[in-house]
Amino acid sequence: MTDAVLKKFAETVLQVGVNLQENQGLEIICSVEKSEVAEAIAKAAYEMKAKIVRVRWECENIDRLTYLNASTQTLSDIPKWLVDSKNYLVENGFCYIAIAAENPSAFNGVPSEKIAAAARARGKALKKFFENVMSNGIRWCVVSVPTKEWAKQVFPNSEDPENDLSKEIERSMRLHSTDPVKEWKKHVETLNARAEFLNSHDFTALRFTNGKGTDFTVGLALGHKWISAEEKAQDGLNFIANMPTEEVFTAPHRLKADGVVKSAMPLCYEGQIIDDFSLTFKNGKVVGFSAAKGYNTLKQIIETDKGTTRLGEVALIGKNSPIAKSEILFYNTLFDENASCHIALGKGYPTTISGGEQMTKRELSARGLNDSIEHVDFMIGTSDLKVDGIMKDGSVIPLFIKGDWVI
Amino acid sequence: MTDAVLKKFAETVLQVGVNLQENQGLEIICSVEKSEVAEAIAKAAYEMKAKIVRVRWECENIDRLTYLNASTQTLSDIPKWLVDSKNYLVENGFCYIAIAAENPSAFNGVPSEKIAAAARARGKALKKFFENVMSNGIRWCVVSVPTKEWAKQVFPNSEDPENDLSKEIERSMRLHSTDPVKEWKKHVETLNARAEFLNSHDFTALRFTNGKGTDFTVGLALGHKWISAEEKAQDGLNFIANMPTEEVFTAPHRLKADGVVKSAMPLCYEGQIIDDFSLTFKNGKVVGFSAAKGYNTLKQIIETDKGTTRLGEVALIGKNSPIAKSEILFYNTLFDENASCHIALGKGYPTTISGGEQMTKRELSARGLNDSIEHVDFMIGTSDLKVDGIMKDGSVIPLFIKGDWVI
Repeated sequence: MTDAVLKKFAETVLQVGVNLQENQGLEIICSVEKSEVAEAIAKAAYEMKAKIVRVRWECENIDRLTYLNASTQTLSDIPKWLVDSKNYLVENGFCYIAIAAENPSAFNGVPSEKIAAAARARGKALKKFFENVMSNGIRWCVVSVPTKEWAKQVFPNSEDPENDLSKEIERSMRLHSTDPVKEWKKHVETLNARAEFLNSHDFTALRFTNGKGTDFTVGLALGHKWISAEEKAQDGLNFIANMPTEEVFTAPHRLKADGVVKSAMPLCYEGQIIDDFSLTFKNGKVVGFSAAKGYNTLKQIIETDKGTTRLGEVALIGKNSPIAKSEILFYNTLFDENASCHIALGKGYPTTISGGEQMTKRELSARGLNDSIEHVDFMIGTSDLKVDGIMKDGSVIPLFIKGDWVI
Repeated sequence: MTDAVLKKFAETVLQVGVNLQENQGLEIICSVEKSEVAEAIAKAAYEMKAKIVRVRWECENIDRLTYLNASTQTLSDIPKWLVDSKNYLVENGFCYIAIAAENPSAFNGVPSEKIAAAARARGKALKKFFENVMSNGIRWCVVSVPTKEWAKQVFPNSEDPENDLSKEIERSMRLHSTDPVKEWKKHVETLNARAEFLNSHDFTALRFTNGKGTDFTVGLALGHKWISAEEKAQDGLNFIANMPTEEVFTAPHRLKADGVVKSAMPLCYEGQIIDDFSLTFKNGKVVGFSAAKGYNTLKQIIETDKGTTRLGEVALIGKNSPIAKSEILFYNTLFDENASCHIALGKGYPTTISGGEQMTKRELSARGLNDSIEHVDFMIGTSDLKVDGIMKDGSVIPLFIKGDWVI
């Protein structure tokens, strides 16, 4: 990205994404290889009078060495100071921006049990922090920037894959507009209108069918609420947790999912690819699964804890959204989930239940909301997907025909 | 550095510097711009069967933004988790390698009061950790690698300053040898022999004189011990805290320093240059100072706390040591202090008192050891320097004539 585009990118993420306020602290999570992005955001944040900007640097090359060489026990030992450093953000009113800059094959060859064990330990140790994140106790935003390896995977035949990927990300982030912040406000209005339509019908279930073999009905949680990516934090301020975003989503009922669902795109999880996979549900629970590629990784995800055998999210995205229209497989959930209807194994968001932020775990569970230390999205929206909304009286309202909205 | 040289560098620092043991944790402190160095060290450490390698990344560009924009109060607020993360290293038997990769003018234009206030707050918050470092409760090593800006400053007329600086660092680190580890063992023997000579004479004071105007007598602490950079950690294992190193050093008596001492080289402190400066001592205390450049920064150092008005170290280095012979001004204390005799304002090392690691603060103070939250070396060794050792009976033994050892 040029300096001018990088500046727009930084300002959009700060103003639309985390909605940074004067005298607020900001944490940036960034790869050491992309320090220019963290610098641009820090600079823009201080121009918006941030109190302080801290950066949590990441390095996949060293993480890979550590995964390969450290014992599972060592990998599972999460220092208390690290947990405290995350809770510190909530306690001190910080917001945070995570700049995902991943090499999709970074962890190829690392035993997936080790990655899963470390993720499980991190999830357990950071439970309080993640609960705060999931109930909007902190404003946050995940964005992506290209890496060489990722770009090569997305554009294997390009002469300058990084530049091509950069251009696609700029387009999806609406940075070509003279006023991306205004563009984003308009876009969010459209998404909110869709959420309102869905909420006004209060569907009890959705049914997904396509030619690939998906025939899947998922019940929705009691008191579920469709929301767009624009959410209200506990402090009353809006933020958008994922940019770009094209989805409206809600809470499935953890005991109500039946049938077979086929993956529509590969899923890249912790640097490993899972492709051409299928899940069979009964009473909300995964009772069978298969994968042409990455079977063990899929198994690890499902076996993380009780909650990863059930669903925590269902999201609708039409095939005519800009990311879907690009017809590019990004090998990156942040983009790919915005090109396709998707569901997620694991933790559900209290924000997708009316009044959910104020409910106890027991109350949320009674509504049907799922709980887990994980949350893994995967894409199910094909170009021939049909989605029907099922009303309380059993009547059916078509929501998607041939992969796109009909409302 | 080529990959092969980088590997030698990593192995030398790990084996000679911190003396990493099997199943020991390692922390690397590294600039995000030099991630390839951290990676090489992490790789070599895992080959030596390190338990885990953690990296604490630094970024001067963002630090500069933070210094310029955050309030002094915010800069002085050191989070508890950060303090805990340092104490964690000691409590869990880690060693650490700090890779200094500094831009000497990184903080030009930042008010020196802000830098001083932040350093003071950090020093106070990390007092326990620094006490452990200073009494060898942890094995550690500081090394340097070139940065573009630093190299330009050292070789302003070179076509490839980074390469030139890299070559000098490789030479000073003895990496051209086929077996740098063996070379280092031989070198350390020479330094240890000098320390033994000095210890056997048990001087009460040293007198420094030269044509520049230095006429300065510094008393040595009671029970002082000359040591080379090879030290024994509390766990009984040797390590070298600074690489390269050419010095033997000991503890001055904090109440015994008189006369005028002139700087021999510029001092680069927190990215600011102090040059052509002079300190006047009476009964161990700075009673006057001047500086042609960086007067305010020098003032901030001296006024940090009570201890920074007195001396914590005196070190002897001959002008024929490899770094001195290169006749290069590195604008970097790690190198420049090894080209020249130097003294330090601030904290003294308990290790330079016989049995000092087991003494209380009060006992150390009674021996004359200085205490402070800071420790700032500055160079006083010119090519015409004369150093005399003064014995208990008043007799004088010449140690240096014309800037070099005569023993």
